Amino acid sequence: MPQQPKVAIIMGSDSDKPVMDDAAKVLQSFNIPYRYTIVSAHRTPERMYDFARIAHKEGYKVIIAGAGGAAHLPGMVAAISPLPVIGVPVQSKTLSGWDSLLSIAQMPGGVPVATVAINGAKNAGLLAVQILSVAQPELIEQMIAYKVSMEQEVIGKAQKMESEG
Amino acid sequence: MPQQPKVAIIMGSDSDKPVMDDAAKVLQSFNIPYRYTIVSAHRTPERMYDFARIAHKEGYKVIIAGAGGAAHLPGMVAAISPLPVIGVPVQSKTLSGWDSLLSIAQMPGGVPVATVAINGAKNAGLLAVQILSVAQPELIEQMIAYKVSMEQEVIGKAQKMESEG
Amino acid sequence: MPQQPKVAIIMGSDSDKPVMDDAAKVLQSFNIPYRYTIVSAHRTPERMYDFARIAHKEGYKVIIAGAGGAAHLPGMVAAISPLPVIGVPVQSKTLSGWDSLLSIAQMPGGVPVATVAINGAKNAGLLAVQILSVAQPELIEQMIAYKVSMEQEVIGKAQKMESEG
Amino acid sequence: MPQQPKVAIIMGSDSDKPVMDDAAKVLQSFNIPYRYTIVSAHRTPERMYDFARIAHKEGYKVIIAGAGGAAHLPGMVAAISPLPVIGVPVQSKTLSGWDSLLSIAQMPGGVPVATVAINGAKNAGLLAVQILSVAQPELIEQMIAYKVSMEQEVIGKAQKMESEG
Amino acid sequence: MPQQPKVAIIMGSDSDKPVMDDAAKVLQSFNIPYRYTIVSAHRTPERMYDFARIAHKEGYKVIIAGAGGAAHLPGMVAAISPLPVIGVPVQSKTLSGWDSLLSIAQMPGGVPVATVAINGAKNAGLLAVQILSVAQPELIEQMIAYKVSMEQEVIGKAQKMESEG
Amino acid sequence: MPQQPKVAIIMGSDSDKPVMDDAAKVLQSFNIPYRYTIVSAHRTPERMYDFARIAHKEGYKVIIAGAGGAAHLPGMVAAISPLPVIGVPVQSKTLSGWDSLLSIAQMPGGVPVATVAINGAKNAGLLAVQILSVAQPELIEQMIAYKVSMEQEVIGKAQKMESEG
Amino acid sequence: MPQQPKVAIIMGSDSDKPVMDDAAKVLQSFNIPYRYTIVSAHRTPERMYDFARIAHKEGYKVIIAGAGGAAHLPGMVAAISPLPVIGVPVQSKTLSGWDSLLSIAQMPGGVPVATVAINGAKNAGLLAVQILSVAQPELIEQMIAYKVSMEQEVIGKAQKMESEG
Amino acid sequence: MPQQPKVAIIMGSDSDKPVMDDAAKVLQSFNIPYRYTIVSAHRTPERMYDFARIAHKEGYKVIIAGAGGAAHLPGMVAAISPLPVIGVPVQSKTLSGWDSLLSIAQMPGGVPVATVAINGAKNAGLLAVQILSVAQPELIEQMIAYKVSMEQEVIGKAQKMESEG
Repeated sequence: MPQQPKVAIIMGSDSDKPVMDDAAKVLQSFNIPYRYTIVSAHRTPERMYDFARIAHKEGYKVIIAGAGGAAHLPGMVAAISPLPVIGVPVQSKTLSGWDSLLSIAQMPGGVPVATVAINGAKNAGLLAVQILSVAQPELIEQMIAYKVSMEQEVIGKAQKMESEG
Repeated sequence: MPQQPKVAIIMGSDSDKPVMDDAAKVLQSFNIPYRYTIVSAHRTPERMYDFARIAHKEGYKVIIAGAGGAAHLPGMVAAISPLPVIGVPVQSKTLSGWDSLLSIAQMPGGVPVATVAINGAKNAGLLAVQILSVAQPELIEQMIAYKVSMEQEVIGKAQKMESEG
Repeated sequence: MPQQPKVAIIMGSDSDKPVMDDAAKVLQSFNIPYRYTIVSAHRTPERMYDFARIAHKEGYKVIIAGAGGAAHLPGMVAAISPLPVIGVPVQSKTLSGWDSLLSIAQMPGGVPVATVAINGAKNAGLLAVQILSVAQPELIEQMIAYKVSMEQEVIGKAQKMESEG
Repeated sequence: MPQQPKVAIIMGSDSDKPVMDDAAKVLQSFNIPYRYTIVSAHRTPERMYDFARIAHKEGYKVIIAGAGGAAHLPGMVAAISPLPVIGVPVQSKTLSGWDSLLSIAQMPGGVPVATVAINGAKNAGLLAVQILSVAQPELIEQMIAYKVSMEQEVIGKAQKMESEG
Repeated sequence: MPQQPKVAIIMGSDSDKPVMDDAAKVLQSFNIPYRYTIVSAHRTPERMYDFARIAHKEGYKVIIAGAGGAAHLPGMVAAISPLPVIGVPVQSKTLSGWDSLLSIAQMPGGVPVATVAINGAKNAGLLAVQILSVAQPELIEQMIAYKVSMEQEVIGKAQKMESEG
Repeated sequence: MPQQPKVAIIMGSDSDKPVMDDAAKVLQSFNIPYRYTIVSAHRTPERMYDFARIAHKEGYKVIIAGAGGAAHLPGMVAAISPLPVIGVPVQSKTLSGWDSLLSIAQMPGGVPVATVAINGAKNAGLLAVQILSVAQPELIEQMIAYKVSMEQEVIGKAQKMESEG
Repeated sequence: MPQQPKVAIIMGSDSDKPVMDDAAKVLQSFNIPYRYTIVSAHRTPERMYDFARIAHKEGYKVIIAGAGGAAHLPGMVAAISPLPVIGVPVQSKTLSGWDSLLSIAQMPGGVPVATVAINGAKNAGLLAVQILSVAQPELIEQMIAYKVSMEQEVIGKAQKMESEG
Repeated sequence: MPQQPKVAIIMGSDSDKPVMDDAAKVLQSFNIPYRYTIVSAHRTPERMYDFARIAHKEGYKVIIAGAGGAAHLPGMVAAISPLPVIGVPVQSKTLSGWDSLLSIAQMPGGVPVATVAINGAKNAGLLAVQILSVAQPELIEQMIAYKVSMEQEVIGKAQKMESEG
């Protein structure tokens, strides 16, 4: 990927990858260069600090961070980096993501995290595209086209359902 | 306000205004022009539709939408507009915001809403600033300054607490 | 189906069909003509608007709407249409339907949705029959017969259990 | 009220009256005759049984039942009467209505209750009007007018907020 | 079973039988005569009334009632019968028994239900034995023996675990 | 109170007394002799152990135990005593009784606790009366009378509400 | 305080001080030297990092960290410091501490936080004493004395309640 | 194991062993002698009392106690023993560990339990090591090494993910 990545997709553990892949797929389909790696707030706190402190200097515009359970990665990256941070609560084994959702969404005043649904990495990717569209108006057009194509797909399925009775 | 507003702050009811004011205050402090109004998905669906369909043509870059209970405003605006939508779950009388949070955060794949904490309008304002920073690099610097000032304030309080024992 | 359908069964996604089929089966057994289709508040907002705005002019008397997660379809249709709207919270993958139930049940004053149990499409069908009975008294008789048959079935099972010890 | 009441508003306890009054006000404003009384599933089971068994013979078309905590009244009336039953979960002292909501919404297949929001008696009244509209088309027109007036009220408030800045 | 049954084990549906069998096994092991049947508050309200109204006259001393979801059976039987009623919240498909537990435990003042754990039919059986022991002191001795045997079983397992390391 | 108390009302803290008084009032009204004291599983484990080990030898027939938060008192007394134990989950300051309810209701197989509603001490008293009725048939008659009086009270209020319109 | 503090009591905000004071009071009563300050994971991430990295070198043996909402402070300090960290979930305004509790308790494998009850700072202080007792056996004796005094206090209250009837 | 065990790992049932084994593995890897057994608060209350009353005299420094559902073992052991007690909420069948977590974490003031995550026995083991480190400074070094090794493992996985793209 010769282009400077604009979006960093980070996750607390490689077990989160199947969920976070949905974000990468969206970025690929919109031709947004991204970088994909593991950064754990709990197991690599220094790496997390170093990543968050310089992400905006390296050219990143948006950070997508996925984590489960007591999910501190999105909030901690948002505490350090001035960039917009999107948090993906990953479904947890015992509490099904209630813990992940609350740990990410309920941030105190001063440090926002843009939280999406539990396992909602696809929407994290789309939100990153929308955020980038502020500086790249052509992405607004692509987002409109994306919505039209989603609409067409549903209408197609609706017609099939109606004709099948 | 002669400048074209870049952020729309909309809410489902005027009773949400005390909460949503926190978003406005942040935007004012960052000199971001914004417009402030009531748009109810449930009581003014046509107005909501009209608003969402043309917001990006009117020059808005980000929409902040607050709502409580079965809070459909952020998600419906996100369904119609290609712009990034920030959802503020407003604390509800009976379920304290559990309903608002889930109604806003748990959006299906394809239609993202950037959810902040219950009553987290301050963070909605800051997130809007961060999103705008993608096209206005000076906002990144201001966000860094904001973080420094927040840090200084906490350190000042810490010193006071330590000296008072 | 040459008869004008009186009930519309709509759902946000074709993945909701196995759940919503239970509503269709009830309507069939009561000989109530219905139409069955996909209308997504989030992915086809215009289709949803168009549907809801004219449903009462097309002869529909009741709308049954199923959706999961941040389930906005029933509430948005109820915001636009003057008809009674029955909402079916579809069980969601991560939160098991807690989100669907709250997103549908906790509607603000002014816009009612008649909410049934999570995955309770069978009861949505029965409720539609009861609503239609206001204008078709023979349906009251059929509903009484339905209750008697349900009662007989349980009594039969009870006798079997008692005799088997 | 010389007219035969079409709607029965029943509640488990006189302490539920302040909540249930919202349903009565709606019915008054639509000129729907109603009867208002206390029927407790737990403390007057026989009275409840008698009420539910003959309600449809007495000319009632819809029953609105409010109850809190382990709220069995709506479900039990629905078990006995063939009429459509609207359940209002009344906010409870200790669990804030979570218990009321689940006890009313999670009915088994075969016995529907049209559940509204916790303390949502206003919507129960509106839903009753919509149900009656199946036989009284003029109520559809009144419901449309109601929606327009609600819309106008919100738009008025929006203009005020916009002009006040 | 020539003896007059002292305990009635009733359940809302034959699908609850695998859970409720645990209560029957306990009663068998304590030689308590019982009767086992289906009584549904929602689908056989009249049968439920008839059962509850005369249970104490037929010689029953305790009623064990299992139900799931909006579980009204234990509370309604307790509303009608003067006998002690033990409620077993059966695990529900969508909400895993949260609804069953709250619908049974949160009874209003005046109508008690002795609630056990979700799927806790074994404890319902034991509680019935303890209740009967008020009139049959030998059951207190048997309950003490039961506790000793439970203790011995655990101690045996503990020794095995300790020796296996 | 010269009579041997049949019911012990114990609570974890004197702050639970206003809640537990409701149980005492019921027992007084049924002329059931009781003893009232503080026994804390956490702060007086030995006292709790001693109490539970001999309660049945001292003539107690039923134990009512109230506790809040991580409420272990009812379950521990039930672990030690062969008597029926009624648990009253006392509403807690932070979690409103969710913790108390689950800590008391979710007992493992082998050790039942008859759980009533959060703050449901009145029902604990009534349940104790019902349990004692197994050996004192006159209490069944009194319980029937109690139900009739409750019914009459509700009917009186219903007539008042109906006449006041 | 001339002695090297052994326990650090840190909190995310000065608004947490009324809760955290309970920990300080316990340490004072056991004559454990402590230091009391504000360290915010979100607003002073660098300060937090610096604190956690050297705490064990400065002679601290235990860290008590209180935080509310998306409470990341205890977990982040535990990620960086090798010392035992006790987390106090502070009751939050909207979700009453559910978010604080889950954000602190549900830590991933590898990074423990010793979580106490919501607002349970008193127990955090006691737990710190117990941890220090591993190296200071006299603290075990003091803890036993503490338990005896707690027991005596309860027994005193019990006697008062029994004599007052 | 000729050495005096310093940590006791106890659990309510042998079915908890697969979860609790994670604590044992950690202690083994740090060469901490431990003893492993079953102690049930509910089924062997006397054994539990005897264990807790003398644990500190037998040379134990820390107790790890795992239990599920209405999980009283950790709290009761903490009520009796002056030692630090770590509670492991074991995931329960019906409520997935919500009951276990609240029953262990929400202890009243005066009796702390160091609660870890649901099924978090690995962290219980690590916390025990950290507690022992107060008296054995070499364990602090080993804990630092453990953190470094955890960090290296994550960095290795991160590099693999980055190179695989």
